[in-house]
Amino acid sequence: MGKVTIDTIGKYDNQDVTVCGWLTHKRSSGRIRFLVLRDGTGTIQATCIKGETDNQVLDLYQELTQESSLAVTGTVHRDKRAPGGYEILVSSIEVLQIAETYPIAPKEHGVGFLMDHRHLWLRSSRQHAILRVRHAVINAARNFFDDQGFTLLDAPILTPSSCEGTTTLFEIDYFGDKKAFLSQSGQLYMEAGAMAFGKVYCFGPTFRAEKSKTRRHLTEFWMIEPEIAFADLETVMKLAEGLVVAIIEEVLQTRKEELHQLGRDLTRLEQVRPPFPVVSYDEAVQIVQDAGESMPWGEDFGGAHETIVSNHFDKPVLIHRYPAETKAFYMKNDPDRPEVALCVDMLAPEGYGEIIGGGQREDDPALLGQKIEKAELPAEDFAWYLDVRRYGSVPHAGFGLGIERTVGWICGLEHVRESIPFPRLLDRLYP
Amino acid sequence: MGKVTIDTIGKYDNQDVTVCGWLTHKRSSGRIRFLVLRDGTGTIQATCIKGETDNQVLDLYQELTQESSLAVTGTVHRDKRAPGGYEILVSSIEVLQIAETYPIAPKEHGVGFLMDHRHLWLRSSRQHAILRVRHAVINAARNFFDDQGFTLLDAPILTPSSCEGTTTLFEIDYFGDKKAFLSQSGQLYMEAGAMAFGKVYCFGPTFRAEKSKTRRHLTEFWMIEPEIAFADLETVMKLAEGLVVAIIEEVLQTRKEELHQLGRDLTRLEQVRPPFPVVSYDEAVQIVQDAGESMPWGEDFGGAHETIVSNHFDKPVLIHRYPAETKAFYMKNDPDRPEVALCVDMLAPEGYGEIIGGGQREDDPALLGQKIEKAELPAEDFAWYLDVRRYGSVPHAGFGLGIERTVGWICGLEHVRESIPFPRLLDRLYP
Repeated sequence: MGKVTIDTIGKYDNQDVTVCGWLTHKRSSGRIRFLVLRDGTGTIQATCIKGETDNQVLDLYQELTQESSLAVTGTVHRDKRAPGGYEILVSSIEVLQIAETYPIAPKEHGVGFLMDHRHLWLRSSRQHAILRVRHAVINAARNFFDDQGFTLLDAPILTPSSCEGTTTLFEIDYFGDKKAFLSQSGQLYMEAGAMAFGKVYCFGPTFRAEKSKTRRHLTEFWMIEPEIAFADLETVMKLAEGLVVAIIEEVLQTRKEELHQLGRDLTRLEQVRPPFPVVSYDEAVQIVQDAGESMPWGEDFGGAHETIVSNHFDKPVLIHRYPAETKAFYMKNDPDRPEVALCVDMLAPEGYGEIIGGGQREDDPALLGQKIEKAELPAEDFAWYLDVRRYGSVPHAGFGLGIERTVGWICGLEHVRESIPFPRLLDRLYP
Repeated sequence: MGKVTIDTIGKYDNQDVTVCGWLTHKRSSGRIRFLVLRDGTGTIQATCIKGETDNQVLDLYQELTQESSLAVTGTVHRDKRAPGGYEILVSSIEVLQIAETYPIAPKEHGVGFLMDHRHLWLRSSRQHAILRVRHAVINAARNFFDDQGFTLLDAPILTPSSCEGTTTLFEIDYFGDKKAFLSQSGQLYMEAGAMAFGKVYCFGPTFRAEKSKTRRHLTEFWMIEPEIAFADLETVMKLAEGLVVAIIEEVLQTRKEELHQLGRDLTRLEQVRPPFPVVSYDEAVQIVQDAGESMPWGEDFGGAHETIVSNHFDKPVLIHRYPAETKAFYMKNDPDRPEVALCVDMLAPEGYGEIIGGGQREDDPALLGQKIEKAELPAEDFAWYLDVRRYGSVPHAGFGLGIERTVGWICGLEHVRESIPFPRLLDRLYP
């Protein structure tokens, strides 16, 4: 008889075991008392029967509150009627703590209340399922790059300059003599890394001090960002497709149960197979216009426009060659058509918005210098970035995939805030 | 004939290939001109012979500068004398860019200069080797926890409160109405996570605004932090040993070449097998005193003291049960001896200092409340943390492993600054 976790209970049929966990709920029916226990690996029903189970244990049943911590000892018993197929016939219960009245009752709570109790909300089966999908997404992404010989190169979080303008940056006083900014993207550093390692990626938190209160925005979110030397737009479009396919495959293989729990329509995810549709910005504008929306060439898509385009396809769609004016300074212009940039965004299906942004980088030192000047960025902060073009510049390209939006799409979440353990929003810094 | 990477060149013996890369150096000997090329996957010698190689290619040889970017086409030729066992007999060279005079010449540079050019310094074989070891360390650590059923739960970076006091925190203005701090540790959040998932870990950057200028300190460093519910000090001491053994095994298996390149004494790493020595703080103080140092019971070890203790053993050493006064508020006191905490540090051998710190957490809500008060921490910021003890508190324990110090030890680095791609120090925020 030893301590076991609920996910392994099937190995101990007819044996005596102890399970440590928390009480999710209890109910009684005639002579029978059911305790439902969770331990992080699963849930199991522990059964006490009047006349058979020790009276001391039955008395305890009354006292136990939701989320009380227990060590339940008893015999594992296969029972088709039990959720999970097994139950424990209780012989003894050790109470670690009788919990105070648990604030999250099985009734509807407002989102603000749940977010204030995020540290407890994580215990719910729904949050559990989402964050286990998140783990699978992250592992799939890392394995995808590791298996192809990319080197992980962690980008710095504290940076001397901004990647895409300073209005949406969090600023820090760095020991009283400098300003530092929280990184919005590791891309610039990955470009330097690609010249050293050929293929690199970073994976870490990034920050945007955007005053946006939409269902797609967090102030702190995680990105995985590959960068490749001797690569062009086409190469990274294929890579982006491959990454998303690999993520979906991994999730469908290892997290089907969680997706069912979330009520996700699996057929929508099963459609995510290569090749993905590829359209130019021009074609995407046409799709928006054909849907009756007025959108002049040259503007960036708004959320509603993105939804129109993504609803046009049943897979993620790659949109390439946006007007250069709408994109960041480091993008390379299309030599055949300088008004557009060699860039690509991937929109998730079902209106979940942009999950990938990337493209080919400006590799000409003179042109890049002009672009930095035009963007009014401080030249001294970007001297090192120009160096990357002065010493053996090569065509190179990369992209960033946002983890939370990807998880939000895969799980079918209404709001991206549930896709990260402790979300940070415009008005949310706690817990 | 196609583009190939240098690591796969052995598959193309006697075939024509193109290798894209950067010139690390060149030399001539009689009729022969050697170009040494790197592409991030390895280096290879490209050979031109006067009278055999096209004259245009030979003329190019003169022009090529260090770090020029090239596409070299030629026939792969097995040659025992060539470094790596293969060379390319050049038929043509496409020059992508003739690099400006490369600032890092093969002479001794000061550390400040190299750090200013970190974006280029990464191209050196030494930095390459270190950062590839880093990648292996990180993968080994993540796999170790994934394989044991831990759930990855990313901790927030922007936090409303400090984990270990506010003097070493970076502060941020959060949209004008709140202060936020950069996380020093994900531990408190992992404790909440352990009550939801049983076993969790986080892996991300952490920050200390310490005005320390030692060879062991960075202001931004990465930690992996597991936390387990229903676990005690002994459990996490075993887990910490297992993690370090798994990391060393992975590095010895996959990064031997890199360690050789760094001149690392492998026998020292091969000794890192379980069981590790385990001593109490009391015993460790005795070791320091026996070495002739004066150290009263009750103080924390200084760097010199740690070196004495670690030199006493040829493996990492676990030191447990420090005086509670020297440790953070959340530590649980030993019930048999309340003046010491149920905590553990692991010191790396050879004087590389503390790589792991952890222990069992205070699980009694009343005692934890008193400790928060005694530490003069703002009660409202820790309300959620107390909740973790109010709703089904259980014994739980965990630790944090610092990636950079671990990499520094494994690679045998003099200073931890080389163990991270873009180090951040008291006086270093660039590039």
